[in-house]
Order: sequence, then C-alpha cells, then structure tokens
Amino acid sequence: MTTAVAWMAPICALVGILVAVNLGRSVLKADPGSEKMNSISIKIQQGAQAFLMSEYKLLIIFMAVVAIIMAIVPVLGPLMALAFVTGGVLSAAAGYVGMYVATRANTRTAHAAEESVAKALNISFKSGLTMGLCVASFALMGLSLWLLLLVFGIDLSLPELIHERIDIVEGFATGASAVALFARVGGGIYTKAADVGADLVGKVEAGIPEDDPRNPATIADNVGDNVGDVAGMGADLFESYTGSILAPTILAATFGALGYFNGQIDFVWALVTPVIIAACGIITSIIGLFAVRTKEGGELHKALNRGTYLAAGIEIVIIFVIFYIWNTQTFDCQPLFLFGSVICGLVAGLAIGKITEYFCSDAYKPVHKIAESAETGAATVIIEGIGTGMLSTIAPIILVSLAIIGAFTFGNMAFPNANVEFGGIAAGLFGVGLAATGMLSNTAITIGVDAYGPVADNAGGIAEMAGLPEEVRDRTDALDAVGNTTAAIAKGFAISSAGLAAISLFVSFQATMHAQIPGFELTLTDPLIVAGIFIGAMMPFMFAALTMGAVSRAAHAMVEEVRRQFREIPGIMEYENEPEYDKCVAISTNSALREMMLPGILAVVVPIIIGCLNPAMLGGFLAGAVATGMLMAIFMSNAGGAWDNAKKYIEKGAHGGKGSDAHKAAVVGDTVGDPFKDTSGPSMNILINLMTIISLTFSPLFIMIQTML
Amino acid sequence: MTTAVAWMAPICALVGILVAVNLGRSVLKADPGSEKMNSISIKIQQGAQAFLMSEYKLLIIFMAVVAIIMAIVPVLGPLMALAFVTGGVLSAAAGYVGMYVATRANTRTAHAAEESVAKALNISFKSGLTMGLCVASFALMGLSLWLLLLVFGIDLSLPELIHERIDIVEGFATGASAVALFARVGGGIYTKAADVGADLVGKVEAGIPEDDPRNPATIADNVGDNVGDVAGMGADLFESYTGSILAPTILAATFGALGYFNGQIDFVWALVTPVIIAACGIITSIIGLFAVRTKEGGELHKALNRGTYLAAGIEIVIIFVIFYIWNTQTFDCQPLFLFGSVICGLVAGLAIGKITEYFCSDAYKPVHKIAESAETGAATVIIEGIGTGMLSTIAPIILVSLAIIGAFTFGNMAFPNANVEFGGIAAGLFGVGLAATGMLSNTAITIGVDAYGPVADNAGGIAEMAGLPEEVRDRTDALDAVGNTTAAIAKGFAISSAGLAAISLFVSFQATMHAQIPGFELTLTDPLIVAGIFIGAMMPFMFAALTMGAVSRAAHAMVEEVRRQFREIPGIMEYENEPEYDKCVAISTNSALREMMLPGILAVVVPIIIGCLNPAMLGGFLAGAVATGMLMAIFMSNAGGAWDNAKKYIEKGAHGGKGSDAHKAAVVGDTVGDPFKDTSGPSMNILINLMTIISLTFSPLFIMIQTML
Repeated sequence: MTTAVAWMAPICALVGILVAVNLGRSVLKADPGSEKMNSISIKIQQGAQAFLMSEYKLLIIFMAVVAIIMAIVPVLGPLMALAFVTGGVLSAAAGYVGMYVATRANTRTAHAAEESVAKALNISFKSGLTMGLCVASFALMGLSLWLLLLVFGIDLSLPELIHERIDIVEGFATGASAVALFARVGGGIYTKAADVGADLVGKVEAGIPEDDPRNPATIADNVGDNVGDVAGMGADLFESYTGSILAPTILAATFGALGYFNGQIDFVWALVTPVIIAACGIITSIIGLFAVRTKEGGELHKALNRGTYLAAGIEIVIIFVIFYIWNTQTFDCQPLFLFGSVICGLVAGLAIGKITEYFCSDAYKPVHKIAESAETGAATVIIEGIGTGMLSTIAPIILVSLAIIGAFTFGNMAFPNANVEFGGIAAGLFGVGLAATGMLSNTAITIGVDAYGPVADNAGGIAEMAGLPEEVRDRTDALDAVGNTTAAIAKGFAISSAGLAAISLFVSFQATMHAQIPGFELTLTDPLIVAGIFIGAMMPFMFAALTMGAVSRAAHAMVEEVRRQFREIPGIMEYENEPEYDKCVAISTNSALREMMLPGILAVVVPIIIGCLNPAMLGGFLAGAVATGMLMAIFMSNAGGAWDNAKKYIEKGAHGGKGSDAHKAAVVGDTVGDPFKDTSGPSMNILINLMTIISLTFSPLFIMIQTML
Repeated sequence: MTTAVAWMAPICALVGILVAVNLGRSVLKADPGSEKMNSISIKIQQGAQAFLMSEYKLLIIFMAVVAIIMAIVPVLGPLMALAFVTGGVLSAAAGYVGMYVATRANTRTAHAAEESVAKALNISFKSGLTMGLCVASFALMGLSLWLLLLVFGIDLSLPELIHERIDIVEGFATGASAVALFARVGGGIYTKAADVGADLVGKVEAGIPEDDPRNPATIADNVGDNVGDVAGMGADLFESYTGSILAPTILAATFGALGYFNGQIDFVWALVTPVIIAACGIITSIIGLFAVRTKEGGELHKALNRGTYLAAGIEIVIIFVIFYIWNTQTFDCQPLFLFGSVICGLVAGLAIGKITEYFCSDAYKPVHKIAESAETGAATVIIEGIGTGMLSTIAPIILVSLAIIGAFTFGNMAFPNANVEFGGIAAGLFGVGLAATGMLSNTAITIGVDAYGPVADNAGGIAEMAGLPEEVRDRTDALDAVGNTTAAIAKGFAISSAGLAAISLFVSFQATMHAQIPGFELTLTDPLIVAGIFIGAMMPFMFAALTMGAVSRAAHAMVEEVRRQFREIPGIMEYENEPEYDKCVAISTNSALREMMLPGILAVVVPIIIGCLNPAMLGGFLAGAVATGMLMAIFMSNAGGAWDNAKKYIEKGAHGGKGSDAHKAAVVGDTVGDPFKDTSGPSMNILINLMTIISLTFSPLFIMIQTML
C-alpha cells in the first residue's frame, strides 16, 4: 500500500458533506407549520445566530492571538498557525451548520408531530445527522488534507522532517480543541443560565409550566438547547474525533521516524490506517441512517439503536478487513492483533455506556434511591446524588484501565520485534491509539442520535408556546426521553476514547521530548514530576469551580431579570403583554461570553507556562490532569443525569408525584445537576485533550528553551 | 553523636505522659456541677464508652487477622505483626484516654462556665491537651522504642539487616494508620448520623432548639462529638504524627544502607534527627500550655494562638540548633540547609491554614457569597459551596508543590555529594520528609487546641439539657466558635504534612523496590503505571462515596427512629416522658460499626492486591491516590466548613436571619456539608497514608512474588 490510498479520506468526507447537504435540504423543505410556530422558531433562530456570531467574534480574536504567536515563534511557524486556524474554523463551521439546521428543524418537527411520532423522528434525526456528517466530514477533510499535503507524501526515512511536519498538523487539532472548549463552556453556561432562571422563577415561583410563553426566559431557554446541546456538543465531538484519529497517527509518525516499526510497509500502513478507518466510518454512518425508521407506536429507541448497531457492525467488519490485508503484506509481524486492540476499546466503551445507563436511568436502583432520599429533604438528595456520581466512577475507570492494558498488549503482540526502547511501548501504544480511533469512527451517526434530542426538546417548546394539542407535546416528549437514554452509550464512548487518546498523545509528548532532550525521563520519584501531577490533578477541580460559578452568576442575573419583568410589565400573566424575551437572551449571551474566557484561557496558558519552565513537570501535570479529568467527567455527568431522572421519576408519580415535598427536594437536586451534567462535566474531556494536544504542539518551543538553558 | 541520644525520645514521651496524667487528674478533680448535669454527662460517658468498646472489639478481630497473616508470611514475620499490634493498641489507648477525660470534662466545663469563660477555657483546654500529650507521647514512645530496639543499635554497615529491621518498624505505623481509618470513619459516621437525625427532625420538623432534652437523638449527638471529634481525631493525628516521624527515618535507613549518605556521622544523624525533633516537640507543647490563659472578656483566640505560637517558636529554634550542631560535625556536607527544608514545610502549612480560614470563615467573601446565594434557594447554595470548595484547592495544592520542591532543593544542597543515583533524590527527599516531621512536631498542643472544641460543644449541650441560664450557653458557644477558627491552622498542617510524608514514603517504596527487583522503574509511559494512576485516583472518590452513603443510610435510620418516638411516646413534648435516648445511641453505634468495615477493608486490601499483581502498577496507584486524596480532602473539608459558617452567618442576622427562607436553604448546605467535613474529608489523609505505608510494609511480599515469577 502507498500513502496515496489515504486519498480515500477526503473523498469519503466529500461524500459525507454531499449527503449532509441533501439531508439538510430535505429538513428545510418540510412544512414549518403555522405562522405562530414559525415566528417562535425565528426568535430562537435569531437568538442562537446572534450568540454564535458574538462567540465567534471573540474566538477570532483569541485564535488570531494564538496564531500570531505560533507564526512568530521560529520553531512553530506560520504553517502551524494556518493549521491551527483551519482546525478552529472547520469546527466552528460544523457547529454553525448544525445549529442552522437544528433551529429550523424544531418547528418542522413540531409540525410533523401533529401527524405522527414517526415523521417527527424522521425530521429531527435527519437534522441531527446533518450535523453529525458535517462534524465528521469537515474534521476528516481538514485533517486528511493536511496529512496528505505535509506528511504522507514525504520521504519517510527522514525522521527530522516527519517530526517537523506532524507537529504542524497537531496545530489543526489544537485549533479544534480550543474552539471546542470555548463552545462547550460558553454554550453550557448559556443554556444552564437560561434553564435555571426559567425554572426557578417560572416553574417554582410563578407556577407556570415549562416553555410557557408568559415566561420571559423561555426563548433563551430554547436557544440554549441549540447553542449548548447542538453547537457545543458538535464542537466537542469534532475535537474528540480529530484527537482520536490523530493520536495513533502522531504515534506512528513519531515512533516510525525513529525506526520503531519493523519496515517501510508497516510504517506506511500505520500512518494511513487511522484516516482510512475514519473514512469508512462516514460511509457506515450513512448506511446506518436507512435503518432509523419507525412506525407509529413502534419502539423509538429500537429504531435509533438499530441505526447505531448496524453502522457499528459494518464498521467492525471493515476494520477487521483492513488489519487482515495489512497482515498479509508483512512477514515478521502480525498487525491483525491490532484488531484485538480496537475490540478492547469497543468493549470498554459499550460497557461504560451500559454502566452510565445503570446509574442514570430511572429503571435502576441508584435513581430510585435518590428519589427515595427526596422524602427526607433536599440535603439527602444532594448527598445521595453526589455519592451515586462518585460511585459511578469505579467501574468505568477500571474498564478504561483494562482497555488500555488490553489494547497495549495486543499492540505489542502485533509487532513483536518493535520493542527496541521504552520497554516496547511504541507498538503497544499505537494499539491504544487505534482503539480510540475505532471507538469514535462512527461519530457521524452517534452525533445524529445525540443531536436529535435537543431538536425534539425545542419542538416540544414550540408546541407548548404555540398552544398545540397535548398529544403533540406528548410525542415530542417521548422523542426527547428516548434521546436521553440512547445518548448514554455515546457518552461512554466519548469518555473512554478521550482517556485512550489522551494517553497516546501523552506518550507521544514523552517520546518527542525524550528524543530531543538528553536524559529526559518521566519517573515518579522526581519531585518536579510529583508536583506536576498534583497541579495537573487540581486543574479539573479549578475548571469545574470556575464553570459552576459562572452558571451560578449567570443564573442569578437571569432570575433577577425574570422577576423584574413579572413585576414591572403588567399583563404578562394574562397574556395581554408579551414579555421581553430579547432581554433574557441578551443576559444569557453576555454572561456566557464573559464567563467562558477565563477557564478557556487558563486551559491554554497553564500547560504552556509549565512546559516552558520544565517539560518533565508538564509530563506529570498531564498525567494528573487526565486522571482527575476523567473522574470528574464521569462523576459530574452521572450525578447530574441521575438527579435529572430522579426528579422525572417522581414526576411520574413516585413518592407523592409532582408538587409533593419530595418533588421539591428532587428539583433542588436537578438544579444542582444542571451545571454538573451540561456545563462542567462535558467540558472535562475537552480540557484533557486540549491540554495534552497543546503540550504536544508547543513541544518544539519547550525543547528550544531547554536546549538554550 | 551516637544513636544512644535517641533515648531522649522515650524519656520525653514519659514526661509527656506524666504531665498528661497530671492534667487529666486536675480536670477530673474539678466540680462536675449539679446532679442533673452530672447525670447527663454520665449518659454521654456510657454511650461513648459503649461505642468505643464495640468498635475496639471489631478492630481486635481485624487486627488479629492482619497480624496472623503478617506472622505467617515468611518475609514479613511475627515481629512485624507485633509492631503492627502495638501501633494499633497505642493509638486506641490514646483515643480512649482522650475520650475518657473529654466525656468527664464536658459537665465540668459547663459548671465552670457558670462562673467565667476563663475557667471554662482552662478545663476544656486541659482536657484537650491531655489527649494531645497522650497521642504524641504514646506514639513517640512506641515508635522510638521499636527503633531503639531494632534499628538504632545495629551495625549500620549491613544494608540487608537495616532494610529488614526498618521494615518491621513500618508495621507499627501500619497498625496506627489502620486503627485511625476505622476510628475516623466509624466516629465520623456516628457523629453525623446523630447530628443530621437530631437536626432534621428535632430542629426542622419539631421546631425545638439544638440539644433540647426532648429530642431523642440529643444524647447520641453529644456522644458523637466525643467519638468523632475527640477519639477519631486523636487516632487520626496519632497516625499522621507517626507517619511524619517515620517518613524521613525510613528514607534515611533505606538510602543510608545503600551508602547514599556521605559518611557514618551523617547516617547516624539522619536516622536519629526525626525522633529528636519529635521529642523536643512534646516538651515545647508542655511549655505552650502555660501561655494559654485568658481573663474574663479577654480574647479567647489570642490565648490559644499564644500557646501555639510560643510552642512553635521554641521548636523552630530547637530544630535550628539540632541542624547547626550536626553541621559542625561533618565536613563535606551542610546539614544546616535542612533547616530550610523544615521552614518550607512550616511556611506552606501556615499559609494553607490561612487560606483555609479565608475560605471557611464568615469574615471573608467566599462564605458571604454562599450566604447570599441562599436567597435564591438551596440549589444555588449547593452549587456555590461546591464551587468554593473546589476553588479552595488551587492555592494549597500549589503551596504543597512548592514546599516539596523547596524542601527537596534544600535537602540536595545539604548533601551535595550524595547524589549518586536516582538523580540525587535521596538527600532531597530526606529534606521533604523532615519538613513533614517539623510541621507535626508540636502535635500535642495542636490537638489540645483542636480537641477542646468538642468538649465546649458538649458543655453547651449539657447546659441546654440541664436548663442552665442562657449566659452559660453563650460562654460555651463562644469557646466552641473560637475552636472552629483555630482548628483551621491545624487542618492546614495536617493536609500538607500528609502530602509531604506520603511522598517521602512513596519514594521509599520506589527505592526499596528498585534495590531488589532488577529493572524496576516508575516511568509514566508504562501503561500499567498509567492504569495504576487512574485506579489510584479513583480510590478517594470511591471512599468518599461509600462514607457519604453510610452517613446517609445511618441518618435515615435515625430520622425514622426520632419520628417514631415523637409519634409513639406520648408526652415527650410536654416534658412528661423522657425519650428513649439509648435507642438512638444504639442506632448510631450499630450503623457506624457496620458501615465502617467496607471502606476500611478496601483501603487495606486494594493496595495489597495490586502490589501482588504488579508493584510498578502499585507505584502509579499511590501517586494517583495521593494527588486526588489531597484534593478531595481540601475540597470536602472546606466546602463543608464554608456551608457551616454561611448558615451561622445567616443565623447572626444576615439575609433575613433565623427562620427565613435563606436560612432554610443554608441549612440544606450545612447538612450536606456535615459528612463532607466530618466524615469523608478528614478520612482522606488517613486513606492516603494508610495505603502508602501498607504498600511499604508489604513490599517484601511483593518482592518475593516478583522474584518467584
């Protein structure tokens, strides 16, 4: 095989984009429903558009500053700056398209739900998959083109050159990660400020239902679903996906350049395999689309799972075939064992998904126990929920650890003679990286399954505000509820793949440093490295504190504004006057933009500063950050999910049902859980990846400083 | 100097014991007040006694099992088992004496408070110092005798022998740590189950004041103060103190035996210095006692601080002198630099104490912000409190990191020629270990300042139950409040010294392994070590979840029982019938004993299992556990403290004062904070130390298994 085969990647990406355009068009062609519904949808569109535009303006400034620094520092250079910018721009573009379609699919889904749940599913899922395909295709297009231009074509016997070139491509991933962090944090603050504000005053104080048009924060709340759960989530997966493809590629390049693979054939395959796996994943996701259909009364989650499982099944076969062919081309090694690495990752991801479901679904004991504890008040709900979230970290962490060890072992078996240095970690860790690639290869359809949820949620909001019959709302609620469970599996994959990718990248960082700084070792007895572990482990705590504080401040401002409108604008309650929706939208927008800057900038700046001071300390820092970052991600997401479903479980009638004291206590849990599961928790994966990839990208600078000292 | 100088240690310990006996006697000689007060006190004594006895019965079984295993395994042996048992027994004895005096000092303090606050301070502080001196003296007595018997006397040129002997002494610390973990967790569950149960039903539902005799859980609540905050805290500091003395001793022995010190003189000094520093600390604590006096109307916290500062000041001078003399005896190194290591530790400990105060005291912004957030309800109180707790980890973690680096650098400067292997870490880490010793050398008086608080708290309870005039309660409340702030500094020292000691021990573990298993390295690129870090980092989360769940279950049972008594026993509210206090005491006792077993056993078993599987993985495991353990300790303790004081701040009149909606919201925060700050948080340090010391103690077993493979 030659590296030219890698042209498959941009071609598949192009196919993905064409299908996405087609899907998006068919969504937009659907009937948007009545004038009233459409006018509500337009308000949401405008709010989301305005927020994204303001966010992107800030991001342009940030990206420009970083890009200029990259361009000026001689060991980084303008090409890296360009890669950085393309990574950021493509991520933003995917988020924008996803948000554009989603904010138009909402009213169309609501209208379709007037007819049947099957039609509503069709539109909302198409909208989700449009973004899914855009995310995967844009990411793969950008990444593979950079690799084809700079890495795949060059003389692979020149280690220095490979190092230099792959480092430039890392800029792409850094750009994507930086945008993702801001988009997740900004979107997360936006949506939770609006949500908490709308709930606390509207639902609790004024006693009006969710999405009631009399609630001034209701438009902001619906905009929030789009900027947080659609655009933010898209950017998030854009960066995980990029990271998971790049992790084994960087490892292959780094170690291949040092002659760690057995021969030229293996080196070329190792370089190209990750993008090919990803390319096939786009095609299988498109195939999966056709399996997602249901009849009225059919089981929705089965339809969605059918699509996911079909795509995953085909993808596994393809991955096997790729390794099988590679295996036939080489003599002294057994790349087919790498299939074992991928399976380790997949099994761990699936199991973690199931565990997530166990801890968060109202069908199991943990959520029942939280609901039960609501009978003794809010305090016991909080204690029980925090305990549940922490307990839920045990199995996933053990599974990720086993997946790492398993993928590593298979990797080593694949290249038995590659064990030259580092105790043979090169081949083993390539296996770990490939496991991450395999897990995220079907990102397009995974996003589809995830991102139709907020569309259905929005459709429900529009149905409520436009006063559609109750059955419409019931249908959109059914859609929304299924989305919550199916998304659990996706979460499992996201968390474990982030762990695997981070470790591969982390080891690449170590290898790069080791190759260029004499005597560079990351041993746990070096006090600088121990101090690095401590400080790194602290970062996720700091990040969680800052983002939760941000939600708290923003929600506070929202509460004050909603209260003010109820007080000062007469006739809101009697539907005589429309509340000033735009003021609430402005509060969410401004709070989110103001508050996202500090945590985002810290995540970028702290690793660079530590790396400039001492690269070994940075190594410890990354190890600590990855460990606690994963823990906090699982803890916060699952505690939040469990609280949410405990509240819903009580609303279904348990422990006194809606309006009971237990329900009030459960609402406190849910409100605390909001920033846990939608702001701080989901940002953790990005934080880990961003800090790791930025360390890799800036490693030439660190090396330069060390050699100057 | 010869090792015979180390006989100073048991002699000073004996002095400490004699003074403690004297102090205890003078407490018991004081007038216990009226019949009624005394009868309440006797109920508390009986409850506490019964709990400790049942707890010790379980501990005897546990200790016996571990001791038998140690005695049977050939590489460990019966002497180690004996050391293990003595460590456990002495720790339990110190806790028992402390509890014995404290449960008798309570009514005497209440009676003294009828006269003046100065007299009340005198009795309660003497009671605290009795336990403080017992803890320090028992620990130093046991430890120094073992060292004198096994290590100090032997031919120091036989590395194998030194290794073997010091390993036996590690059994002593393991015994102390194991008892401490059970005592802390059991006591913590007991006290919080009673506290939460008494508050939720008594204060919130029935609307009767705290410590009201009509509340069935009130005796259990007061017993809880003694078994948790007195006996539990004593065992806790017994183990930190032991660990902090042993950490540099083990390092000195391990590295000295390998010939890392420059000569015989330095080796002997290095071995003996830690126990001498500790011995002097007992004497300075006794001197500090005389400075703790106040007049009526005098500022209480100044009196307490005077004692602490005086003791610390003298101790610093003594430590300087010790290093100065050592410096004059040796030629090619500068042990005086080790004084710099100690200062690094002290400065970090003091600064962390001040930061703790900043985040937890109602004089500063963080607590005000939590109180303010109470206006928008319980959910925002929780979010703000969690955020505050997480934010409060930043500075302490950076300070501990800097202290490690600083103490390490000074250590290296002290022995410029000792840098033979491990990149010169031997001498540097000896400095880190000594910093921990220096920080905890005044443990006796620190405990005195800490442990008088629960006595004052109990005195207040007795005053309330016996219907003493309100001014008495005001005086005991004043005493109690001051205790909360002065304890902050002690907390700072406990956290940072645990971090420093754990790292020294951790490196000793690494050095021991490295010396005996060929090719043993702890590099961060080994996937087994990375997996170890992940699993280790997860342990504190698991531990927190289990202990919080335990409190939640126990409190639930207590709530049910109190409700039942109010329902079924007529005339409680009219003071006609006494509630069944003993039933509540039994619930707390049984819950605590049942629930402490699982987390305690896991903490012992998991490191041993991992070590048997792979010692390198255990190295990663310990690093991960120390990092997140410190973070969780700081986070949980400070969040809990801040919630507590936010509630008190509102009770003083802010945001509507007692009974307002804001107050109700703040009570939720306080209740969540209870297990945070009194059960899970304070157990973290012990968890870290226990897992580290047990790994060291069992290292001969791990080595045996590795060499057999």
